[in-house]
Amino acid sequence: MQIKEIGEFNLIRRMSAILGTPKRPIIAGIGDDSAVLNPPSGKLLLVTTDMLVENVHFSTSTATPYQIGWKSLAVNISDIASMGGEPTYGFISIGFPRDTDAEFVDEFYTGMRDVAEKYGVDIVGGDTVSSPEIIINISLLGEVEEDSYILRSGAKIGDAICITGDVGGSSAGLEILKQKLSIEGADKHLLPQPRVQEGRFLARSGFVTSMIDVSDGVASEINHICEQSKTGAHVYMKDIPLSSNVVSVAKYTNKNPYSFALFGGEDYELLFTCCPDRFQFLHDQVLCAYNIPITQIGYILDDLSITIEDEYGKKIPLEPKGYDHFKS
Amino acid sequence: MQIKEIGEFNLIRRMSAILGTPKRPIIAGIGDDSAVLNPPSGKLLLVTTDMLVENVHFSTSTATPYQIGWKSLAVNISDIASMGGEPTYGFISIGFPRDTDAEFVDEFYTGMRDVAEKYGVDIVGGDTVSSPEIIINISLLGEVEEDSYILRSGAKIGDAICITGDVGGSSAGLEILKQKLSIEGADKHLLPQPRVQEGRFLARSGFVTSMIDVSDGVASEINHICEQSKTGAHVYMKDIPLSSNVVSVAKYTNKNPYSFALFGGEDYELLFTCCPDRFQFLHDQVLCAYNIPITQIGYILDDLSITIEDEYGKKIPLEPKGYDHFKS
Repeated sequence: MQIKEIGEFNLIRRMSAILGTPKRPIIAGIGDDSAVLNPPSGKLLLVTTDMLVENVHFSTSTATPYQIGWKSLAVNISDIASMGGEPTYGFISIGFPRDTDAEFVDEFYTGMRDVAEKYGVDIVGGDTVSSPEIIINISLLGEVEEDSYILRSGAKIGDAICITGDVGGSSAGLEILKQKLSIEGADKHLLPQPRVQEGRFLARSGFVTSMIDVSDGVASEINHICEQSKTGAHVYMKDIPLSSNVVSVAKYTNKNPYSFALFGGEDYELLFTCCPDRFQFLHDQVLCAYNIPITQIGYILDDLSITIEDEYGKKIPLEPKGYDHFKS
Repeated sequence: MQIKEIGEFNLIRRMSAILGTPKRPIIAGIGDDSAVLNPPSGKLLLVTTDMLVENVHFSTSTATPYQIGWKSLAVNISDIASMGGEPTYGFISIGFPRDTDAEFVDEFYTGMRDVAEKYGVDIVGGDTVSSPEIIINISLLGEVEEDSYILRSGAKIGDAICITGDVGGSSAGLEILKQKLSIEGADKHLLPQPRVQEGRFLARSGFVTSMIDVSDGVASEINHICEQSKTGAHVYMKDIPLSSNVVSVAKYTNKNPYSFALFGGEDYELLFTCCPDRFQFLHDQVLCAYNIPITQIGYILDDLSITIEDEYGKKIPLEPKGYDHFKS
């Protein structure tokens, strides 16, 4: 059945049934003009928003509705994680073409509900409209203790540049999907797992000076940190922890494996800086508590140059070649 | 110059320059993964979100970029107003085609800045992406005292149903634009003026039991109030305060003038219920303080019927014929 046969209000009822009841006590949610919420008590309020457009950010030819729902909310959760925060309330605006199958909508909201449940998010509002292609906008609130939020701008000269988990796996996964390769690891692209607990631990440790999530690629994120912190950086290519699918995909596509990590993006790992003599402590704690390794990939410099040492020991500028939405 | 020649980051810089510096002290805004804000102190948090799609919600053939920017934020401000709240922080996600003129973007953000300044909104975050048509999603935060927020669900049997200002003017204005009529009053459609001060006064008066803004038309809003309050209603058509452009447009288009008010929508007046013996007090106070009249158009019933008495004294069901996004 297509959603034009169901109508807007029945569609909203159907979504609400899938999303279930909020876990936190709320005063008003879906069904009034605004949500009415208790603000975080004694904490700071975090807000992030992301727009995803069909055939720009995702394609129904390479992702299921469940995966699109999961990822849409996951990328916003990652933005809260990168501040050291805890996600709380989600608001989902969605544009669907009138001939969208109701089943598509159900699966989409099921994916969103599952990632919301995993990370403790209550979806309490939104907007539903018709549009020529699928458009998703999520606004996500979060909260963080007043003394433990982490900005992009705090990197200090001499800091270690570190990264959680492994990178490159998402864009390698996208190649697997696009080229229908029989290589494992497309999930890295389809079902990202934001590092909320890890981000909260790192922020509260007191040793992390800046943090960002890897949405546009390691090169772009390091450039963001340096721009906001007014520092330079030097990175060792060989130290970048590549995801397990990267080498196979790189071989098949005849690309440098590190290009997936540097310029691919959408890994949603955390890139952060810390005092270098605290690296081992943070590494051991995060590995022990969350079973996620942390790797040092470089350090912060006092001049404004941002460089990378390639596999052959050659030092070259590290350009922020992440995705630019408007350059053609 | 088209925005693909400018690039994403320069575009964001350009927008930030137009929007200016937030008036409220914020910890982090545009340029980090999430905004970091002080939550409302001793008040409740309001959140609303709206998605607007080109050629569904607006058209560049009938509205200037300035007007599109103004209206996009104004409709969200109206959602906060209808809770009795004060708008605070705005988050703007926007999708533009790559060949959009930079001047279009500048004017769009100027409209948005002007309505933000008028109503005390600080725009502190967002997302900018490319898309096949223009897509705007706004999330707006607000705050309200713990004892003076107004929901849709509080209408009591015997309450007066009241409305601020006049209605029908927006959809009459749209007809003026579409049919290029030489009738005054297209501004009612293009530059809505949300009733924030009026909403705050009404909410804090203690006499208002439910409130909603007129976005889908008076008929639809009364149905929402009754559904949420589990009541019925009776409305007198002749008492509905029509905007000054409605009669001329109705004559020209050969429509019942009241149909613009009942089924047109986008007037962004406040429809509310109150104890009937407080109506005159509220009327006099709002007229004196804000120069806006309030009109009683009906009352709340104890059965669940929702009816209207037409110009000829005939009682007919009042169906919620507002806009349904998915019905074709």
